[in-house]
Amino acid sequence: MPLTPDQLAEIDAARTTPRQTLRAVSEGMEAHLYRAHPVLDHGFVRVIDYMGDDAAIVQAARVSYGAGTKHVSNDEGLIRYLMRHWHSTPFEMCEVKLHVKLPVFVARQWIRHRTANVNEYSARYSILDREFYIPEPAQLAAQSTVNNQGRGAVLEGAEAARVLETLKRDAATSYDHYEEMLSQEGQQGLARELARMNLPMNIYTQWYWKTDLHNLFHFLRLRADTHAQYEIRVYAEAIAATVRDWVPIAFAAFEDYRMGGVTLSAKAITVLKRRLAGEAVGQEDSGMSKGEWREFVEVWG
Amino acid sequence: MPLTPDQLAEIDAARTTPRQTLRAVSEGMEAHLYRAHPVLDHGFVRVIDYMGDDAAIVQAARVSYGAGTKHVSNDEGLIRYLMRHWHSTPFEMCEVKLHVKLPVFVARQWIRHRTANVNEYSARYSILDREFYIPEPAQLAAQSTVNNQGRGAVLEGAEAARVLETLKRDAATSYDHYEEMLSQEGQQGLARELARMNLPMNIYTQWYWKTDLHNLFHFLRLRADTHAQYEIRVYAEAIAATVRDWVPIAFAAFEDYRMGGVTLSAKAITVLKRRLAGEAVGQEDSGMSKGEWREFVEVWG
Amino acid sequence: MPLTPDQLAEIDAARTTPRQTLRAVSEGMEAHLYRAHPVLDHGFVRVIDYMGDDAAIVQAARVSYGAGTKHVSNDEGLIRYLMRHWHSTPFEMCEVKLHVKLPVFVARQWIRHRTANVNEYSARYSILDREFYIPEPAQLAAQSTVNNQGRGAVLEGAEAARVLETLKRDAATSYDHYEEMLSQEGQQGLARELARMNLPMNIYTQWYWKTDLHNLFHFLRLRADTHAQYEIRVYAEAIAATVRDWVPIAFAAFEDYRMGGVTLSAKAITVLKRRLAGEAVGQEDSGMSKGEWREFVEVWG
Amino acid sequence: MPLTPDQLAEIDAARTTPRQTLRAVSEGMEAHLYRAHPVLDHGFVRVIDYMGDDAAIVQAARVSYGAGTKHVSNDEGLIRYLMRHWHSTPFEMCEVKLHVKLPVFVARQWIRHRTANVNEYSARYSILDREFYIPEPAQLAAQSTVNNQGRGAVLEGAEAARVLETLKRDAATSYDHYEEMLSQEGQQGLARELARMNLPMNIYTQWYWKTDLHNLFHFLRLRADTHAQYEIRVYAEAIAATVRDWVPIAFAAFEDYRMGGVTLSAKAITVLKRRLAGEAVGQEDSGMSKGEWREFVEVWG
Repeated sequence: MPLTPDQLAEIDAARTTPRQTLRAVSEGMEAHLYRAHPVLDHGFVRVIDYMGDDAAIVQAARVSYGAGTKHVSNDEGLIRYLMRHWHSTPFEMCEVKLHVKLPVFVARQWIRHRTANVNEYSARYSILDREFYIPEPAQLAAQSTVNNQGRGAVLEGAEAARVLETLKRDAATSYDHYEEMLSQEGQQGLARELARMNLPMNIYTQWYWKTDLHNLFHFLRLRADTHAQYEIRVYAEAIAATVRDWVPIAFAAFEDYRMGGVTLSAKAITVLKRRLAGEAVGQEDSGMSKGEWREFVEVWG
Repeated sequence: MPLTPDQLAEIDAARTTPRQTLRAVSEGMEAHLYRAHPVLDHGFVRVIDYMGDDAAIVQAARVSYGAGTKHVSNDEGLIRYLMRHWHSTPFEMCEVKLHVKLPVFVARQWIRHRTANVNEYSARYSILDREFYIPEPAQLAAQSTVNNQGRGAVLEGAEAARVLETLKRDAATSYDHYEEMLSQEGQQGLARELARMNLPMNIYTQWYWKTDLHNLFHFLRLRADTHAQYEIRVYAEAIAATVRDWVPIAFAAFEDYRMGGVTLSAKAITVLKRRLAGEAVGQEDSGMSKGEWREFVEVWG
Repeated sequence: MPLTPDQLAEIDAARTTPRQTLRAVSEGMEAHLYRAHPVLDHGFVRVIDYMGDDAAIVQAARVSYGAGTKHVSNDEGLIRYLMRHWHSTPFEMCEVKLHVKLPVFVARQWIRHRTANVNEYSARYSILDREFYIPEPAQLAAQSTVNNQGRGAVLEGAEAARVLETLKRDAATSYDHYEEMLSQEGQQGLARELARMNLPMNIYTQWYWKTDLHNLFHFLRLRADTHAQYEIRVYAEAIAATVRDWVPIAFAAFEDYRMGGVTLSAKAITVLKRRLAGEAVGQEDSGMSKGEWREFVEVWG
Repeated sequence: MPLTPDQLAEIDAARTTPRQTLRAVSEGMEAHLYRAHPVLDHGFVRVIDYMGDDAAIVQAARVSYGAGTKHVSNDEGLIRYLMRHWHSTPFEMCEVKLHVKLPVFVARQWIRHRTANVNEYSARYSILDREFYIPEPAQLAAQSTVNNQGRGAVLEGAEAARVLETLKRDAATSYDHYEEMLSQEGQQGLARELARMNLPMNIYTQWYWKTDLHNLFHFLRLRADTHAQYEIRVYAEAIAATVRDWVPIAFAAFEDYRMGGVTLSAKAITVLKRRLAGEAVGQEDSGMSKGEWREFVEVWG
């Protein structure tokens, strides 16, 4: 269970004291504030704060376009236009701050998105909790035989049981020893900043993570993608569900142009145009490598 | 006058419709929202939105320090500790979005602060207003004779009058010609993206500018400083006045450690220690260059 | 003429003293070093320094992929794979430093690319030269009637002559007055940081600009594009020509996937699939707005 | 031993084939290129490439200051002036690319410096080596009793032996199980992206890390500081030793103004001035908290 009764009580308290503001308010996002959306076995995503809404994107863009702009007839049209033409700055005018609890190996992927602000729980200063990510059996997959960085079939039978047993036992042993090394009962007690090195990378950490909507969309495009590792993808999906409620128009444009869209190379455009003209084109006369062709036919047949 | 009656009416309307939120609210900042604080002759600074308050800084830092931290006894003590030790990430957890109207030559200095989001009014798309910065007589200063990038005494008499007259006349002429080139009366009309090049750099532009509190403090330290050009310093001072109301504890720490503080080199530390021990030290036996020494005695005599 | 005889002599001197290095060397780029490629009437682009080559991209990617990776069979294949899958970090491992002379209104667009390092010639500290951008007659275009931020037909006859005459005369007048205000002959002389505000935005400035290859590609995609304003596009094209010689494999991948590629929305994919299946699809049953449809048929007919 | 004979042979080969370049060359840095400087028990730092030297800092600054600037009489004076006045952009004009092998828990601290480019060896794609950081006995310290994020006395006797034995055994066990789970002998074999979660945070990873000199100085100031954790400080010190050879003038200024300097608050300035005037000042009449005062007297007595 990700949260203690005390923590749940604190969240309830925070949610029972609305205050007045003159700022832009997103009703959809207010419903998410502070609540912990569970992810994996012990993780969560919580919205701590947000700035702006769909109208704020339009408002910022109007400054950059100036008064009297009537070319794009309404907010949705303008937001779709901005998304289509990669005008990123208006989306940067919305900001969100999340509290996330996540395994360390997921945190290591996540942090590669540099345009964000982070405060992580310090294992130099504090003692980490005994919480480890242990995959569901359905997620216990074999190494892919076609993709060096992917998963294949789900492990079965005795092998699956062995893996789960190993992960649980090694985590427990490591944590027992972590506590023993830290202990000051009858000994000096190892420094926290050293003891932590004995912990495996499926231990949970937590952080405050703040970013703007443009960079969040970029994060979601890469991490909610089917090629992302499952364990980060579920976080991206949980965040995406809150963004949909926060800025529904921008999110719909993002789904149409980014998540549901594809990028075609000059070579791919040529192949499609030849096909549209009735020609049959195969890999050998496409100018593409086998890898590119395989990805091309995944979309176009 | 920076704002039209219509614009003032829009601001009044925005200020009369408070809404409920569960987010952190800064009463001091709510009082500033949307209001235009005049700067220079036609410019202004307006707070459009903000995220967080003093408590949000502490809250973010507590995550990075973990539960049970009682070492720093209260919020003010923790905020001062964070500022003193250059722990910047908790301050990054607060964000502010401003609408600023400013001369182009000021905008060109301002934009050098890269960690910020900007939407500027587009002179490719729209026609700029006939508004130019003309300095107050008290700001019409001669080139400094001791500092290549500074101002000396205020210009006097006929010279001051000539300069003001020149600035006004050239701005008016340039703008008249800008309009003439754009005009589609009896001619094709030059493209806006070309016509704008005839305008002088004291014309006003405007933008939405969004940044976090850490980077804003950095901006204020450099631009509210006495060495900054007057025309950007007055913007920094207007912003500083709103930040003081937004996050009073953090701002007080910023004033003590940054605005009111100094950095001493290893050489300067040695000189001060020798002086504290009763020794008289001059430039020649300080190890400092003449320039460094001049800056040193400005503070220490 | 962008460079004085003295400056040309300095460049020649720099080019006649090769030194030995153990670093990666790009012969194609060495040929460009220090030389000024003219752009517009007084501008230029010069390569001051560079880091890395095509092999350096592969080398960096191999670290992130680990030893023994033979899946992608050669450098070109790997570079194309990285570009296709938006793996940006290996491209970030190459860096370039340029010296650029450009009109201020172009500099204002350019600087919006924030992930770069800049040192600009200071008009607070120094006196700007009397050099202004005056468009070629072929570039003197009317405001577009279909695109609020674009150009239409070239101006003709008397109107073109009037515009050129106006731009030249206002620039000359402004600069004469700039010099008069600065002059210390028989007067105090206005501070440089103030006098510069009288100068129009077609005056030339110059800066050192340094960025990595990934961000440079992003700059080129937006600024070498046909929708970019001509006056910045010619700079992007001059830079692109040097990048082609610097990292020819990466540049070819960039041309195929970025410059020559298109992004299709989910709606556009559906329309193309229906067309490939033999169906005739028009705007009204495409789900696209008129604007989107117009852009779609520009590529696909 | 950090490098295999094959890797050492590759480095020797790279070092025996100098090429000609017209770029700025730092002889001091050429001596470091590609060589692995050992850090900790299995780690290293290697310079892969660099851009610029001391003269390049001056050259960039001269553009921003303009021709004819004679106020700062020489390169060293100018570099010291730039450092003293926080003019960071000229230092950003130098760039360095390092190959670093380091424990994961160190990598997690390191990556918080966001203004850098990183390519890390991928444990999704590849299998990590069996190499773990095990501290020297002299580094096996107890938790500090005065500083929640620091180290106290060195562990002694049986406790020290127990800790070392635990760290070694748990690392070995975790890695054995990692290999067993990955194995495809008689079983499917767990996906690499999952198996890695069983590994402890003292396992070594490696990356290419590229940053500019300004941001590198910031990294060194925080990480070569006595308050930094020992395991990252030794990396910072190894890097600092190469930077000293690369840009000796800039490094000397950095040492004087940053590493050897201190920042005084407004309150601290007042106390020092009172002391210089002969007054005895204690904590209670200093206006400082006990924590601030303790840090103050550490420097000033």
